[in-house]
Amino acid sequence: MLVVMQRDATPSQIEDVLAAIRQMNLTPHPLPGATRTAIGITGNIGAVDPRTLEVLPGVMELIRVTKPYKLASREMHREDTVVKTPQTVVGPGTCTIIAGPCSVENEAMIQKTAEFLVENGVKLMRAGAYKPRTSPYAFQGMGREGLDILARVRKRTGIGIVTELMDTDNADAVEEAADIIQIGTRNMQNFSLLKRVAQARKPVLLKRGLSATLEEWLMAAEYVMAGGNYNVILCERGVRTFSDHSRNTLDLSVIPPAKTLSHLPIVVDPSHGTGKRDYVPAMSLASLAGGADGLLIEVHPDPDHAMSDGAQSLTFPAFVKLLESLRKLAVPLGRTIV
Amino acid sequence: MLVVMQRDATPSQIEDVLAAIRQMNLTPHPLPGATRTAIGITGNIGAVDPRTLEVLPGVMELIRVTKPYKLASREMHREDTVVKTPQTVVGPGTCTIIAGPCSVENEAMIQKTAEFLVENGVKLMRAGAYKPRTSPYAFQGMGREGLDILARVRKRTGIGIVTELMDTDNADAVEEAADIIQIGTRNMQNFSLLKRVAQARKPVLLKRGLSATLEEWLMAAEYVMAGGNYNVILCERGVRTFSDHSRNTLDLSVIPPAKTLSHLPIVVDPSHGTGKRDYVPAMSLASLAGGADGLLIEVHPDPDHAMSDGAQSLTFPAFVKLLESLRKLAVPLGRTIV
Amino acid sequence: MLVVMQRDATPSQIEDVLAAIRQMNLTPHPLPGATRTAIGITGNIGAVDPRTLEVLPGVMELIRVTKPYKLASREMHREDTVVKTPQTVVGPGTCTIIAGPCSVENEAMIQKTAEFLVENGVKLMRAGAYKPRTSPYAFQGMGREGLDILARVRKRTGIGIVTELMDTDNADAVEEAADIIQIGTRNMQNFSLLKRVAQARKPVLLKRGLSATLEEWLMAAEYVMAGGNYNVILCERGVRTFSDHSRNTLDLSVIPPAKTLSHLPIVVDPSHGTGKRDYVPAMSLASLAGGADGLLIEVHPDPDHAMSDGAQSLTFPAFVKLLESLRKLAVPLGRTIV
Amino acid sequence: MLVVMQRDATPSQIEDVLAAIRQMNLTPHPLPGATRTAIGITGNIGAVDPRTLEVLPGVMELIRVTKPYKLASREMHREDTVVKTPQTVVGPGTCTIIAGPCSVENEAMIQKTAEFLVENGVKLMRAGAYKPRTSPYAFQGMGREGLDILARVRKRTGIGIVTELMDTDNADAVEEAADIIQIGTRNMQNFSLLKRVAQARKPVLLKRGLSATLEEWLMAAEYVMAGGNYNVILCERGVRTFSDHSRNTLDLSVIPPAKTLSHLPIVVDPSHGTGKRDYVPAMSLASLAGGADGLLIEVHPDPDHAMSDGAQSLTFPAFVKLLESLRKLAVPLGRTIV
Repeated sequence: MLVVMQRDATPSQIEDVLAAIRQMNLTPHPLPGATRTAIGITGNIGAVDPRTLEVLPGVMELIRVTKPYKLASREMHREDTVVKTPQTVVGPGTCTIIAGPCSVENEAMIQKTAEFLVENGVKLMRAGAYKPRTSPYAFQGMGREGLDILARVRKRTGIGIVTELMDTDNADAVEEAADIIQIGTRNMQNFSLLKRVAQARKPVLLKRGLSATLEEWLMAAEYVMAGGNYNVILCERGVRTFSDHSRNTLDLSVIPPAKTLSHLPIVVDPSHGTGKRDYVPAMSLASLAGGADGLLIEVHPDPDHAMSDGAQSLTFPAFVKLLESLRKLAVPLGRTIV
Repeated sequence: MLVVMQRDATPSQIEDVLAAIRQMNLTPHPLPGATRTAIGITGNIGAVDPRTLEVLPGVMELIRVTKPYKLASREMHREDTVVKTPQTVVGPGTCTIIAGPCSVENEAMIQKTAEFLVENGVKLMRAGAYKPRTSPYAFQGMGREGLDILARVRKRTGIGIVTELMDTDNADAVEEAADIIQIGTRNMQNFSLLKRVAQARKPVLLKRGLSATLEEWLMAAEYVMAGGNYNVILCERGVRTFSDHSRNTLDLSVIPPAKTLSHLPIVVDPSHGTGKRDYVPAMSLASLAGGADGLLIEVHPDPDHAMSDGAQSLTFPAFVKLLESLRKLAVPLGRTIV
Repeated sequence: MLVVMQRDATPSQIEDVLAAIRQMNLTPHPLPGATRTAIGITGNIGAVDPRTLEVLPGVMELIRVTKPYKLASREMHREDTVVKTPQTVVGPGTCTIIAGPCSVENEAMIQKTAEFLVENGVKLMRAGAYKPRTSPYAFQGMGREGLDILARVRKRTGIGIVTELMDTDNADAVEEAADIIQIGTRNMQNFSLLKRVAQARKPVLLKRGLSATLEEWLMAAEYVMAGGNYNVILCERGVRTFSDHSRNTLDLSVIPPAKTLSHLPIVVDPSHGTGKRDYVPAMSLASLAGGADGLLIEVHPDPDHAMSDGAQSLTFPAFVKLLESLRKLAVPLGRTIV
Repeated sequence: MLVVMQRDATPSQIEDVLAAIRQMNLTPHPLPGATRTAIGITGNIGAVDPRTLEVLPGVMELIRVTKPYKLASREMHREDTVVKTPQTVVGPGTCTIIAGPCSVENEAMIQKTAEFLVENGVKLMRAGAYKPRTSPYAFQGMGREGLDILARVRKRTGIGIVTELMDTDNADAVEEAADIIQIGTRNMQNFSLLKRVAQARKPVLLKRGLSATLEEWLMAAEYVMAGGNYNVILCERGVRTFSDHSRNTLDLSVIPPAKTLSHLPIVVDPSHGTGKRDYVPAMSLASLAGGADGLLIEVHPDPDHAMSDGAQSLTFPAFVKLLESLRKLAVPLGRTIV
């Protein structure tokens, strides 16, 4: 933490700031410069809200230095985290494919999709039983019935399940059905929900919030880890900007800093990131080349009649073709598609 | 809904789009132009996801026409909604002040604040028992104990209580303690929570999400109203942009379109909108002049030692001064500060 | 400037950073903390690009402390700047109205508008002879002929002229015709143009760039001031965000920090800020109440047939009504509409 | 163009809109729906500003259908454009490397860089003689002397030159020295400059503006093409968003829609896009895999002492390593690095 004083701050104003810092049980380090004084602060800053220093007379600005996340930080944990499920792993060296429809629509289509994925060597299927929809009048998912379908298909095909949890009420049921619990974009800062999955025995796939900074995203991961669940997978799925050529702005440039600041694996969802199936293959390849540890891709047996997100879902043949391209591209990158 | 075809779309591609529309039980209206064909669609669009039309061959673009919200729409309800609490009203003609600390820190400070507000003619006090905090290591609020404090102070002083609900687990308790239930920014699209407060017998103050469009915000209100609770107050509290001179970018320009598109009252929170107490008075006056139906202002008996958001909280004397300015400004606007 | 080292930075890495700082002719001040070392830097930083420090081994982050603008800074110039034209002033205590059509369309409409404004006590008329248009096929303005019209109408009516300069080629002619030279949004960082108007003998109205931070905007003002022209008026006209309910997002919350950090006057353009005439009155009142030193308002004798921006232009009667409201609102604010 | 009427629009309001459209010499097509009427418009819309329709009584919304760009549109020109310089091409099938320092600092470093690039098979060198700098106090480039250096080094080594033009005053000199004229981010909507390079006999590399939509970017290209210069290369270099983990947000997801909507080649600048040299290799690979026709990469013989942008410049060894990775990655993509 650094307090920057105004050029014309008086000695007594500086003294008041020093006193305020000491009162917070922190240590001030005055740093006089040619034109103004800055004051470094050391000590355990977590417990206080230092923004109050900013409004003291003579203070120009307050600059935070220490990163607020600890468990999610690479500084605290040098090795890359590898998240394991019974079927596969998510972590360095591999690129893990998670594919499937937006929502569970009925048992036949889930069974069909699972068989198709298994045939093509994909170990994890995504499909939502609970769907966060902008409109209260839109299809809200099949709920418990959808979870039951997922459980039966999982048993029959051996495929791993990635499915979204929207509220604590359904946490036990989702935890039971899922191999990886997905926390959606709109719930990235639903702290009650984060505290609940911190208690879960299953890994958590944490989608980045629509306008979350990397720091806020890592802080959300920190909520889960602070509660004891260290198996967190970050998922970039596009952020909201002024840019209107795609549904969201897929921020692939977050991959290198995420990997620098954190040891957690990061996967990319190009389906939500672009919102249009034609753009998914190019962005999948770009994600792999850019360092993503996995991909979350929407695929549907009949996307033109899907109950949600059909426009961004690949058909089976298009998915097979993409998988082939990904496998070829992985070779020079020294990576394996799993 | 309007489907715009590419310039070189073939007659058979156009025919396929017409067929796809009919299959959705909607009516297509071909509209041939000089350079391309557009196809208008009429019928009940709510149930289908028309984005699938966009990926049909020959289609250039899909343009939505109908607004997806109904109950929140002024087209459906011409009169301004007036939300009532036992203490006051929120609606046209008045500007309702809701003031108080960020969080309930202890009974003494809540009692002191309530007495101060009552003395100054303020009828509603804001204060959080449950606090959404970016960091899991920050003060998370007093919880049930905080609600009990609010209930006792309410009883002693008669002040109305506005307090945040963060999850369905605490819904009954918050509904009991509150005169207005606040849904925070990060939960604007927590649809499970919205469905819960749709069942509440208390009005809902719905804060705009950090990167919510006006349409998404009204759709969130629609969730509450569709469940039977028509007493929704919109609350603008700053959105997230590239702009870094304040904590958030207070979007006062949302007031006129919100009032054009919806009949719901809208209040402004300049404390979160700016994040700095020095900027609160100017933005409070601007909100009133810009048409806000109310203000949500952080005030604290000792902001420099507040447990959260002290930097953006006004002192008692600063608040009194602001209140005086607001009352003077209301006169030429034909409004009353309540 | 502050260099923050990684937790596990070695003593030799720290030593290398100290050496690099000294090589830049700056003075390093090591600041060891509990978990990491930070290094304060003092000296004249302007000439070097300190971002190179950020990529040295062991460095986590680089934090800039000193504001890069000097002449535009309130720290260097405590008093509010008052910009004067032959007709009026722009500065504290007043709110200066600048009104008129988007473009000069012909002499009759300019004469008519000028007479209307003079009658209503408005001293400055805006009107563009050179128009920056997104499309090369749109009306580009009347050019020199438009400037001649402005000159003649100015002579006949005594009204002051605010008109845009788009390139150095036309700088002499615009400088001759204008009482205030407008630099448009798209040219806020056209540094060649800024250097040219730095030589002008007329004040400069500097519109904020579509995605300019306050610091970049003040740096653009610094370009003009560094060249010798201290008469700069800042103009907020909406920034670009995800928000789609208005043409741009009018950022009124920039007014208080702009006034804190700088001594330059700031005016607001609610016409471009909202893009819709119905929203202009509310945002004009909000700007005045929020502390704007002036307003730039589009008004047109026949907006429905304007050659550009008619949708955001007020009719004469609507403008008269707004002026009346502004005058009433100014009273409790202790301001005068000029 | 489509005019959407309010639900309760009266027949006479609808009639007025029809009349207004006819008065613009356009043809209205009423499209009555279950709940409201929409009105399609056909004809040559270019010349009028249809936003005025939006403010007529009873009108809810105006929706534009036709894309405003023509020459830049793939609808008008199906084949991919290939831009040629004496040294190489930019277009489909290849990925053209353009590398070099941010600015011309002296002849020795330019000669050294050019020799290094030629040895490594790179045909185009970037280096700025005129530098747009946020601060008037920062190094502004060597100007004409820099151009002379580029010309001499070009002659000696045969390397092609990509260099920025900032104003019309220096257009002849830059056109003479450059093989490709760069228009920088801040000048993407400097329409006077665009009109000038529309007259140039050299290709134009058009960087995307900091907050430009794809449509605005293509409209800027249209300015150049409308003036007769069809050799335009689009360059994505990061846009401005709330995201603060990198200098800008590199928008790779613009590549697929840009290629769908336009026939112009698109290159990516990962150096400005990320602002940090450590992130450049991953984003270069991602750009190639995502479909970019070229890369603009900052490389400097001694980046830690560069006069500008050293933090985002690669060292020579790092660049060689990246080039090798790109060449390997190009194989499975069926592309050639040139």
